Amino acid sequence: METRHRVVIVGGGFGGLYTAQALKRAPLEVTLVDRRNFHLFQPLLYQVATGGLSPGEIASPLRGVLNRQRNTRVLLGEVVGFDVVGRRVLLSDGEVPYDTLVVAAGARHHYFGHPEWEALAPGLKTIEDATEIRRRVFLAFEAAERETDPELRRSWLTFVIVGAGPTGVELAGALSEIARHTLREDFRNIDSRDARIVLVEGTDRVLPPYRPDLSRKAARALARLDVAVRTGAVVTAIDPDVVTLRAGERTEQIRTRTVLWGAGVQASPLAALLARAAGAETDRVGRVLVAPDLSVPGHPEIFAIGDMACFTHQMGTALPGVAQVAMQQGRYVARLVQARLADRTLPSFRYRDRGSMAVIGRGAAVADLGLVRFNGHLAWLAWLFIHLLYVVEFENRLLVLMQWGWNYFTWNRGARLITGPSPLPLRAGP
Amino acid sequence: METRHRVVIVGGGFGGLYTAQALKRAPLEVTLVDRRNFHLFQPLLYQVATGGLSPGEIASPLRGVLNRQRNTRVLLGEVVGFDVVGRRVLLSDGEVPYDTLVVAAGARHHYFGHPEWEALAPGLKTIEDATEIRRRVFLAFEAAERETDPELRRSWLTFVIVGAGPTGVELAGALSEIARHTLREDFRNIDSRDARIVLVEGTDRVLPPYRPDLSRKAARALARLDVAVRTGAVVTAIDPDVVTLRAGERTEQIRTRTVLWGAGVQASPLAALLARAAGAETDRVGRVLVAPDLSVPGHPEIFAIGDMACFTHQMGTALPGVAQVAMQQGRYVARLVQARLADRTLPSFRYRDRGSMAVIGRGAAVADLGLVRFNGHLAWLAWLFIHLLYVVEFENRLLVLMQWGWNYFTWNRGARLITGPSPLPLRAGP
Repeated sequence: METRHRVVIVGGGFGGLYTAQALKRAPLEVTLVDRRNFHLFQPLLYQVATGGLSPGEIASPLRGVLNRQRNTRVLLGEVVGFDVVGRRVLLSDGEVPYDTLVVAAGARHHYFGHPEWEALAPGLKTIEDATEIRRRVFLAFEAAERETDPELRRSWLTFVIVGAGPTGVELAGALSEIARHTLREDFRNIDSRDARIVLVEGTDRVLPPYRPDLSRKAARALARLDVAVRTGAVVTAIDPDVVTLRAGERTEQIRTRTVLWGAGVQASPLAALLARAAGAETDRVGRVLVAPDLSVPGHPEIFAIGDMACFTHQMGTALPGVAQVAMQQGRYVARLVQARLADRTLPSFRYRDRGSMAVIGRGAAVADLGLVRFNGHLAWLAWLFIHLLYVVEFENRLLVLMQWGWNYFTWNRGARLITGPSPLPLRAGP
Repeated sequence: METRHRVVIVGGGFGGLYTAQALKRAPLEVTLVDRRNFHLFQPLLYQVATGGLSPGEIASPLRGVLNRQRNTRVLLGEVVGFDVVGRRVLLSDGEVPYDTLVVAAGARHHYFGHPEWEALAPGLKTIEDATEIRRRVFLAFEAAERETDPELRRSWLTFVIVGAGPTGVELAGALSEIARHTLREDFRNIDSRDARIVLVEGTDRVLPPYRPDLSRKAARALARLDVAVRTGAVVTAIDPDVVTLRAGERTEQIRTRTVLWGAGVQASPLAALLARAAGAETDRVGRVLVAPDLSVPGHPEIFAIGDMACFTHQMGTALPGVAQVAMQQGRYVARLVQARLADRTLPSFRYRDRGSMAVIGRGAAVADLGLVRFNGHLAWLAWLFIHLLYVVEFENRLLVLMQWGWNYFTWNRGARLITGPSPLPLRAGP
């Protein structure tokens, strides 16, 4: 038993977790290392950021998910490097030897050379990001209620979202619903419906990775929700009370106290560490260029998958950084490892695009399932159904569905708590 | 309409919220000031601290709770003082004039002259307290799993709870269930059932405010859960890796990395500010001594209620700091204010003790409802029913009940997330 093949997986996101689960019955010794103790269902993170769901409803403890898988152990640890010669993963407080290594460490936001923007325009990747955004959004309404200067009040009620990918579109739609419905009766000095939501996108349309007709439908749904969309506009400066945009020759300044970032992502720093250790190349956003079987070139025993891998062998361009890719890659690597142990071979990895979807608001979504494309209520229901299907634990699925149903019929968002360090005073002076 | 009587309520806990709600139909202008934007159902906070419930499930946004009450506005603000001559509440960023003032600012923990213990032994009063305790508890198991030294591992698996009031007893019972059931399959290097839970109490029995026979039953239930109870023992020192107790002549040192505080409470600092401004007296734990009608002596227009008030006119001793007292006092003050406006008088406040309860674990609780006392499953169901009845929003009630049902049948606690700043590395060195 001591000589079992050791598979070490770094990261408990979609890629890592699906690898581990697909190795369930294999005669291997699997170790999953993550610095967090839970798997996070990132596609619903925007619901936490907008008070619709609680963190516990979209996160599942990794140990709980994997505890009945007897060949697998979970390690809470921070990976700080890779020794590819000695075949060890280096942790901040130890090391883990491997025979096969799967690195699935995901991605973080990217501020295009402006790291100073991070404090002013938080992105949405972690539970802490989500509660911070929730805090800023609901504090902005509180500050507006307290503010007497109409100019300043208006800037508190202006929300700028940078990037009109799925996350940006979802945030913009949810913010609009909060302003127009959820908070409508809550204030006495302001009308929350006066809130202005601006969605900024550098390319010429919202949801740029989707087909143009779906982008058009999404733009129309956003317009119905009173979201002001600025396409072909790039952010040139972010200050505490103003965002500066440039669209062609034109410059626009938007006075706002709340900027949210959904624009760029880059691979986890572990991608660079792995590439350096293994002598591999990385692309423009730091992803490891992988071979057709997802291994790191020259190292058949090392795989990089998910958002931190750049796989170009199928479409010429890299596969998108979405959960479906990570999940399929995880399952492929699990099959490949088992095939190798049985002296079988496997054809190269092929991504089967099951389509893309984005939700814009209550009953409004767009879906492109390859042969069929649809929008409106049907797409929204499909989106809901598919997302619930993939929420990892049955219990969470039920709670999310209940919350959703309740929120749908009441427009309520009961989890709109402002937590963390005291935000007071909201303004200076008497 | 401009001349409506202005009632300002400080604090959105049980006292303040029930005052505001009882003024619903009164021809008054009500302002509720709180520095948090939500009402917190404190009696279930220990469930958040132990991963059974999520913060959003036991908190309700104050604006949401009060938004249909048209005579009431909510103000997010930090009270920094009282001008009782000018009849103004002073905020860190403004002021609010009042005709009648109700202060219900609650209580915080109290470390008996050892403020340095706070960092080592967090108490349980806020959402942040609860997520911090949750973090420490589940990190301790993670650290034990990683630790190879048996001595240190044992100290990670030892949990000391100071104070055997309802909170201490509930925490101890929940920790025991986590160790014996929830986490049982989760680890590979440790057996979570080896965890040692020590409950320290200065008086001679657990649940000292209850009748002796209920204390005995609670002690037996704790013993069944393998909780080691140390009565007649006081904490004399808390260090990062050891707690020192003294019981009579004997001294005991317990090596532990996790100490939780459920021992002393003292009134909010606002009690002292109010007392100084109004020339009132405070008791040993900082509570304002109030008149038989809950007003501050010499100031019939100012009331202090709930955990920060000391009311001795009924039993000779002060009423306990429980939700029932605060709720009844809030309702009384609301009736008194309305009576005065109608030139009627009201008899003094009388507390109607509806009984006390504490839950020890799954199916184990004690209840003393005056005429009847019971324990076991029946008490547990009564406890559950009564608590659900008082959870403020219907939606939360449903979610809590569902979570509870799920946790009951599966022993699961899905909200056991370790959040906040990175806890890694868990130990120093390689």
